[in-house]
Amino acid sequence: MEQCLIHFSLMARWKPNAPERLAEAALELFAERGYDATTVAEIAERAGLTKSTFFRYFADKREVLFGGLTLDQVLAAGIAAAPSAATPLEAVANAFEGLGSDVFTPDRRPFSRRRQAVIAANPELQEREALKGLRISAAMVEALEQRGVPVITARVAAQVASLSLTMAYARWSEGDEDFGDLARRSLTELRAASASC
Amino acid sequence: MEQCLIHFSLMARWKPNAPERLAEAALELFAERGYDATTVAEIAERAGLTKSTFFRYFADKREVLFGGLTLDQVLAAGIAAAPSAATPLEAVANAFEGLGSDVFTPDRRPFSRRRQAVIAANPELQEREALKGLRISAAMVEALEQRGVPVITARVAAQVASLSLTMAYARWSEGDEDFGDLARRSLTELRAASASC
Repeated sequence: MEQCLIHFSLMARWKPNAPERLAEAALELFAERGYDATTVAEIAERAGLTKSTFFRYFADKREVLFGGLTLDQVLAAGIAAAPSAATPLEAVANAFEGLGSDVFTPDRRPFSRRRQAVIAANPELQEREALKGLRISAAMVEALEQRGVPVITARVAAQVASLSLTMAYARWSEGDEDFGDLARRSLTELRAASASC
Repeated sequence: MEQCLIHFSLMARWKPNAPERLAEAALELFAERGYDATTVAEIAERAGLTKSTFFRYFADKREVLFGGLTLDQVLAAGIAAAPSAATPLEAVANAFEGLGSDVFTPDRRPFSRRRQAVIAANPELQEREALKGLRISAAMVEALEQRGVPVITARVAAQVASLSLTMAYARWSEGDEDFGDLARRSLTELRAASASC
């Protein structure tokens, strides 16, 4: 048992995962010197890795804060796994559970806060984030269509779901609530609001 | 009368408007050599202008295909001008009229088609387009809030409106229908679809 605790403690300090170490190093450097003044070589060096290792995981400097996210796969899997009688937005709500347990876990919150601050300060990163948002939305449309949802309904549902995610992510970063709870609550608010559009 | 026709004909050939000439030159060069291989200096040269003139109108190379768009202002003005009894999406529909008459006019369709093809081929331009989409949505949220629409309702309405615009723009580029008609039809389809989400 004690050995187990020591093992986890070392794991946490060593951070043996290359993409995570690169993202952490990038975040530090972007905060210290600014995004533009930081090179890929410097990020790799700070992480104790090589530039070629960087490019094994990320296509470019922008990607380093986005590459680890698998939101689209987690959401698509959650939508596919929803009961067959679920409405489109019920299927989406089912998928949000997975984000709370697998992606936006409480231990990730401090990193997310710093990441949000760096993105807010850099238009190039905002562009990458905007494009990622479109891809996440497209993944939800596809997963809903595979459930037999007509494409137009799937697109509206994905728009509402995307906005729920944005709202929930902002609230989750700032506070201490469970991501899944926040995302389902946002979805409920938006469904109610859509009645008065 | 004849003098008048000659005048217009020369206007058309000279294209005296610098931002439009730069956008046209950029589009030609991006299609010929690719986006990455084209420099700002080459765009300015092709347009018969200087690099400093380029930067008077556009912040960077990406912006040259987006700088001329004033969608956000036209939409905000159209939303503000809607009758006070209009629902949020009726106000948006009112704004779409303005796009058909002032922005997406039939003479612009050939340029838009080529522009779409270049954007589809270049991830960097897709990023800029994604960010512009978010800004257009934010402008609609603000204009709706100024009408007294609660922020959450305004955000849902803007999401639906944004999707209408995307759909209408794709249909308008490909076909020969009026943009305003297409946008209002998309909006109606999406409102109907949202009932079954």
